[in-house]
Amino acid sequence: MLFSLPSIRTIGVPLFSLCCLYSTVSYAWHNDHQHPSTFDTDVVKLKEANQNSQLAYDIVKSLTVEVGPRIAGSSGDKKAVAWAEAMLSEMGFDKVYKQPVKVRNWERGFADARVVLPFEQKLVITALGGSIATPEGGIQEAVVMFPSLEALSASTKAEVEGKIVFLNTRMQRNREGKFYGKVVPNRVNGAIEAAKLGAKAVIIRSVGTDNSRFAHTGLMRYDDSVRKIPAGAISTADADTLEAMFAENKKVIIDVDMQAKDAGWQTSYNVIGEITGSEHPDEVVLISAHLDSWDEGTGAIDDGAGVGIVTAAAKTIKDTLGQPKRTIRVVLYAAEEIGLVGARQYVSANKSSLENIIAAAESDFGAGKIYQFDTRFNPVVQKSAGVLYQALAELGVEYGNNQSGGGPDVSVLPALGVPVFALKQDGTYYFDYHHTPNDTLDKIHPEDIRQNQLVWSIVTAYLANTSFDPRPAP
Amino acid sequence: MLFSLPSIRTIGVPLFSLCCLYSTVSYAWHNDHQHPSTFDTDVVKLKEANQNSQLAYDIVKSLTVEVGPRIAGSSGDKKAVAWAEAMLSEMGFDKVYKQPVKVRNWERGFADARVVLPFEQKLVITALGGSIATPEGGIQEAVVMFPSLEALSASTKAEVEGKIVFLNTRMQRNREGKFYGKVVPNRVNGAIEAAKLGAKAVIIRSVGTDNSRFAHTGLMRYDDSVRKIPAGAISTADADTLEAMFAENKKVIIDVDMQAKDAGWQTSYNVIGEITGSEHPDEVVLISAHLDSWDEGTGAIDDGAGVGIVTAAAKTIKDTLGQPKRTIRVVLYAAEEIGLVGARQYVSANKSSLENIIAAAESDFGAGKIYQFDTRFNPVVQKSAGVLYQALAELGVEYGNNQSGGGPDVSVLPALGVPVFALKQDGTYYFDYHHTPNDTLDKIHPEDIRQNQLVWSIVTAYLANTSFDPRPAP
Repeated sequence: MLFSLPSIRTIGVPLFSLCCLYSTVSYAWHNDHQHPSTFDTDVVKLKEANQNSQLAYDIVKSLTVEVGPRIAGSSGDKKAVAWAEAMLSEMGFDKVYKQPVKVRNWERGFADARVVLPFEQKLVITALGGSIATPEGGIQEAVVMFPSLEALSASTKAEVEGKIVFLNTRMQRNREGKFYGKVVPNRVNGAIEAAKLGAKAVIIRSVGTDNSRFAHTGLMRYDDSVRKIPAGAISTADADTLEAMFAENKKVIIDVDMQAKDAGWQTSYNVIGEITGSEHPDEVVLISAHLDSWDEGTGAIDDGAGVGIVTAAAKTIKDTLGQPKRTIRVVLYAAEEIGLVGARQYVSANKSSLENIIAAAESDFGAGKIYQFDTRFNPVVQKSAGVLYQALAELGVEYGNNQSGGGPDVSVLPALGVPVFALKQDGTYYFDYHHTPNDTLDKIHPEDIRQNQLVWSIVTAYLANTSFDPRPAP
Repeated sequence: MLFSLPSIRTIGVPLFSLCCLYSTVSYAWHNDHQHPSTFDTDVVKLKEANQNSQLAYDIVKSLTVEVGPRIAGSSGDKKAVAWAEAMLSEMGFDKVYKQPVKVRNWERGFADARVVLPFEQKLVITALGGSIATPEGGIQEAVVMFPSLEALSASTKAEVEGKIVFLNTRMQRNREGKFYGKVVPNRVNGAIEAAKLGAKAVIIRSVGTDNSRFAHTGLMRYDDSVRKIPAGAISTADADTLEAMFAENKKVIIDVDMQAKDAGWQTSYNVIGEITGSEHPDEVVLISAHLDSWDEGTGAIDDGAGVGIVTAAAKTIKDTLGQPKRTIRVVLYAAEEIGLVGARQYVSANKSSLENIIAAAESDFGAGKIYQFDTRFNPVVQKSAGVLYQALAELGVEYGNNQSGGGPDVSVLPALGVPVFALKQDGTYYFDYHHTPNDTLDKIHPEDIRQNQLVWSIVTAYLANTSFDPRPAP
């Protein structure tokens, strides 16, 4: 009953109108461009151009409304690739191209869970990304609850064998999202640890800071030496319900039915747009986001926001300051969610030219306001970017430290000598929505994403238009 | 694959332990009860007893964990009735009985919707309570959007016939929840107005103040003189998505498949617990909540909270102040959500004794803090309750006005001469969760519901233990 895919042209139309609107503002700046540019005057111009721009927001809107969910290798992912190519072209990037990335497509399918004893209750569940299915009809077994992955690992076969393991670790709210790293091993390694002790399945309390009825999905892993078992996440509200049943010292039996499947190899793409450098076209400032998303929300904060922010930053520079001296390369990575697959492919396809990357960064933490600038720059020159730090400090963005990882997809680069930086965003609410059906456009505040767009344009302009060179990464 | 219902005894166990815990505190007060009671000293005692009590919260916890969803006439509803009888008995009410109520059971069934054109997108939808099903396989039609029910009514057959109507009215957030009344006609009467103009179905923007991916259900009505069409609600996030598609002047086609059904007549019950008055057993203070809920959440704020609050208030009075002079009657109404069915049955079964009700009230607006006391009391005596108003003012609860409706289920009483009152709660967040799968225990703050329990105990104690008599209602 579904009609055919809208053409790329159709996808591009609303963006085209945005471009025009935006250009009206920026051309005025071009005409006024008679004085020699300095970084300080560039910052003033970027601020001015940013004031009424909602380009980043409108890009996320276009992606979420016109494409929506786009798990790697899916039909949504293919639409997203076509959308991104059309969008970057409409934005006036000098070069737009794509790089094939082999991805394993995984389909979520049906997922259902309910408590059978001591009290019948529905549980809101979702399969973890990459999980195998349960046997058809589901698994009905006693549940054994652990407060942490460590407690599970310290348990015994006698305790766990034949049961469903429930990992019930709470995640605390934090601006940096720093508790994610502490809790996410439940999701990634829970199935391995539970299977080692003979569990039939594992369910985790969602790795999220909300109290809601949304389950948070996300990547999980198997170990070839350990039997594969199905893995799911239940919402925090449902985890509370299960916990309350255990608190009464009752035997808890649940029924879990998840029909996820591996749907085989597909080709996805890193989509790349470049604004060619006027003086040093081979020197590249790489700013990035990832194009894929999980499949239940529309991928607004993860990572439509990043797509909007870095694209808008690059376009603002071109429209406001003219052609940059170095090349600005916007990379929209494929398949980040399923394990940085596009990022690794990027490295392997660009091995010989990685040394030309002046610095790289990714925006992949929603659209909260930026409050800190971290780097991994050559320490000999790192401090010489004082004019940049000063400009950012005036926007409330303080310099942090020189130990940055740069963001998920660029985290593979420092080991190869490529400098990275990170613009740290307020992630207080990021993990309320992350990897849920509730990751939708309304979670982005236009004012916040506008601040991101400005900060990224300033940092990128500095790296692209001055002689500052932070290579190699320490 | 589901086992049998846990016995009533099993349901009661955790409550029994609460009772004991609570009684330890209250007996101490009884032993100290040598001085003649005045209302002022009673208030001091109630405050003292309330300090460490989480009885109301624990009652909601028991109901939501052990029973969960309980739409009128369902198996969950039957479990809730058994739970309520057991709970009131365990609490030591002097009389516990139930009153049969014929209810029409409605089953939600499967609901699915998606945008087909201009951009494929899943829509989170739920059927409105009482809706008929779509034809099997769903309805695929063009959508016509209206900003309000008035705009729909002012439209024409030419505009609407054969289409799916989308009512897209936003609801504003407000402490009193006063915008509910403005928007809820979309839900209640949308199908009638749309069908009058030949629509094939109606979907509404959820009547809710959240931005989320939960659809809000709730009662809808048909008119016997107008063709019945299926009616559903989509989440506010999905309504935004649809609206964005219309904003591009595109033709929007959606596919809606909802397989709700009328499941016939069932018997439910008003469950009633009484603490018999020591001096005027025939004079009754009626405090109430409704036992039924919608079927997707666990009915924590709607209306587990009310069940907990009024039950805890009555028990606190008995344990702290001893037997009241007048009878305190806790009524847990059946089938409020489907149209005050239990409330009407209560009136018809108690016609001859309604004049004995000193005053009646219902707690049915979640568990937010109480900030106002409204009444519908005989105006000749209304002002003479100054000592009560003073006691409440000291808790931050101001006297409001004498035009109260008293709450949904008791709203039928003033016309019959029965005085009512209302303890108005902060409902700022109530409509974020109302009638969604997200109406779960975690939405209740223990401190807030404890304040409710105290305020209800004070008002109920005043009405039950003093000679104040606000009859008849104006």
